[in-house]
Amino acid sequence: MRIEVVCTGDEVLTGKIVNTNFSYITQKLEDVGLSVSWETTVGDDREELLRAFRLAGERADAVIVNGGLGPTVDDLSQEIAAKAAGVDLVLSDEWLARMESYFQRRSRVMPPNNRKQAMLPAGAEILDNPVGTACGFAVTIGKARFFFTPGVPRELRRMLEEQIIPRLLAKSGRQSAVYLKRFHSYGIGESHADTLLAGVEALAPDGSVKLGFRAHYPQLETKLSVRGSDPDDVRRKLAPVEQEVRKRLGNFILAENDQTLEGVVLDALAARGATLALVETFTGGLIAGRLAHLPGAEKVFRRGVVARDSGEICAAVALDTGALTVVTPEAAEAVARAARRATGATHALAVLVDLDEGADRIEFAGTICLAIAAERATATRRSRIVGGRDWVRLGAVEMGLDCLRRYLQGLPVAERIDFEKA
Amino acid sequence: MRIEVVCTGDEVLTGKIVNTNFSYITQKLEDVGLSVSWETTVGDDREELLRAFRLAGERADAVIVNGGLGPTVDDLSQEIAAKAAGVDLVLSDEWLARMESYFQRRSRVMPPNNRKQAMLPAGAEILDNPVGTACGFAVTIGKARFFFTPGVPRELRRMLEEQIIPRLLAKSGRQSAVYLKRFHSYGIGESHADTLLAGVEALAPDGSVKLGFRAHYPQLETKLSVRGSDPDDVRRKLAPVEQEVRKRLGNFILAENDQTLEGVVLDALAARGATLALVETFTGGLIAGRLAHLPGAEKVFRRGVVARDSGEICAAVALDTGALTVVTPEAAEAVARAARRATGATHALAVLVDLDEGADRIEFAGTICLAIAAERATATRRSRIVGGRDWVRLGAVEMGLDCLRRYLQGLPVAERIDFEKA
Repeated sequence: MRIEVVCTGDEVLTGKIVNTNFSYITQKLEDVGLSVSWETTVGDDREELLRAFRLAGERADAVIVNGGLGPTVDDLSQEIAAKAAGVDLVLSDEWLARMESYFQRRSRVMPPNNRKQAMLPAGAEILDNPVGTACGFAVTIGKARFFFTPGVPRELRRMLEEQIIPRLLAKSGRQSAVYLKRFHSYGIGESHADTLLAGVEALAPDGSVKLGFRAHYPQLETKLSVRGSDPDDVRRKLAPVEQEVRKRLGNFILAENDQTLEGVVLDALAARGATLALVETFTGGLIAGRLAHLPGAEKVFRRGVVARDSGEICAAVALDTGALTVVTPEAAEAVARAARRATGATHALAVLVDLDEGADRIEFAGTICLAIAAERATATRRSRIVGGRDWVRLGAVEMGLDCLRRYLQGLPVAERIDFEKA
Repeated sequence: MRIEVVCTGDEVLTGKIVNTNFSYITQKLEDVGLSVSWETTVGDDREELLRAFRLAGERADAVIVNGGLGPTVDDLSQEIAAKAAGVDLVLSDEWLARMESYFQRRSRVMPPNNRKQAMLPAGAEILDNPVGTACGFAVTIGKARFFFTPGVPRELRRMLEEQIIPRLLAKSGRQSAVYLKRFHSYGIGESHADTLLAGVEALAPDGSVKLGFRAHYPQLETKLSVRGSDPDDVRRKLAPVEQEVRKRLGNFILAENDQTLEGVVLDALAARGATLALVETFTGGLIAGRLAHLPGAEKVFRRGVVARDSGEICAAVALDTGALTVVTPEAAEAVARAARRATGATHALAVLVDLDEGADRIEFAGTICLAIAAERATATRRSRIVGGRDWVRLGAVEMGLDCLRRYLQGLPVAERIDFEKA
């Protein structure tokens, strides 16, 4: 089955906004084993839209169109869909009633121009939008079934998952139960992970589990997409592969599915009634910035200190200045212990960075020395990261959080990662 | 002149990477008064590439193709370009020599598969790539001139600006001196700025200056693109418009061109030999995260403190706990003064946020109370921002930095912005 996507709108075509809707759509389809063959972007222009719909209708079996369902004059998708399908544009009483009740529930009167959103090509199948007034719909143009979706990301996402993917899977004859299992890791590069996980797909019967990756430094996402006849079948097929991936990636798995590293750290601290103090230098507050604002952090996050000068760090945690003349694991340990004492937190993390001299460049490196202090024990880690100022900074933020995660989970804090220089 | 863009590569088509190259290309063209009419994305697939090139060659006058110039087997652009143009693929001795010297200068031997990068359609015009081994080139397919560019963003950018835009401007008969003037502001929404700046384009002769905006909350970028016969002509045409924009946006302009808000703040502090202390709550370290890592900040940024608990904030700056029972401008002032005393910094900024209760939602709001303390004077600001937890947090970060910028520039710190609730 050939699938195409048509993205519409001057904002996308002129680059005012980056087209993240397209990457979202195509990734979601990949996750359920469907592939997009072709994408077209055109502006809010009748002639170009008509041409794009007709061309896609000649080539594809299914087309997802994004954008152009709003109430303003430059929203043209319904009009051109009707024209391309060779039918009239008619008022949908069903959608008009839905919109009126939508406004009523919010104690507002529906503005007259919203009526336009209920004008659909005759015979169109409505695709429900539970979170907005734009009406999704499906019509046939040429040899393809077209699915029209709103440009608002939140509305697109619901409609794609609830309305369109099930229809595409049915149309493709694919099994309808699909599931995406995700593992998040820090410290393993994509090609290394690919090698480590060689052969895991074979543990599931008849190619029903597909392995994929998405690298966004410093984290790597490992994805298992599973197809089966029903949820039980999916679970049965996934189980041996999931278990093997967890075994091979081991301590490097920092979170799964919708979990985040910072969420895992916060939960682990909250679960033991612990509190946290942080000391940062070149990471500049970004470690605190991952944790301090989270709901629930007000009980756990005690204090973060940011300074670039070693004397200032010592002053902030009431430590003798001599303790931090050179950036070493021992100095980090002294700072973490002092931060714990000064704030009364049960746990303290100190992440110190010794930067190379000179201008930013690709070989620019930093040496990270970090320490975690708690009541009973401390742990330290030393690492050198090369790749420019931002690369070092982002790496140091992630390493600090991940070492704290490892400490709280009773795992070795100092385990070699792919991003560090031996 | 009709311009199209063809983006190639499985990584883009499957959504593994978001297509920022396209938005970069189309924005750059918009900036010099050229418009893209149509964009197509296809994967690393011979049949689809050929079809995409042929269709674009039928419709357009100029086509920019991005990607597929690398040394590996899935890089197909040269091969398919030759096929679509109906010519052979031939070795370019010129580019081969360039590549060999490129590797030699880096004391490396050229791997044999790089030779593929010097294979070009017969008769192709070389587009220089001073920062990589991918050879850009131009050929004619159908009725369009095709410009082939590398997928590596850094290489694309140089080639687009130095090689392709001048050729497109010449082809379009447009004047060749172009310049983009940018103003960055915080606190004015896009539609408000559009109203404020109504008519400024008319101050330049014959439509030679075009006004545009790019909103990326919390900042707004106001762009003036100017065309002229030479740099002097451009300056002359731009001057009255630039002056008027500066007058109308006034105190809201926080930086121009490549400057950043944090860079302006850091420079203003450094220029007077000042040092800075920060106290943050819900912003969680993100204000420090904008400043502390910058080159030069090690001399200016003294200390940042992050805490969610008011007692903890007081403890961190040696202030009596009673001073911060409620979040008010006066409390923020007491905290800023104490932070200045505790750290010996010449300037202190305290940004306190009183958050609504309950779960995150679109009506979720926060009250921001901030204060700046310096040797002679203090300034305070109170503001309520509505729009969800992240919206409030990002708004508070920007407001803190911008109020500090205003203070250092001798401007009123408390000036009403569009994002705050009366």
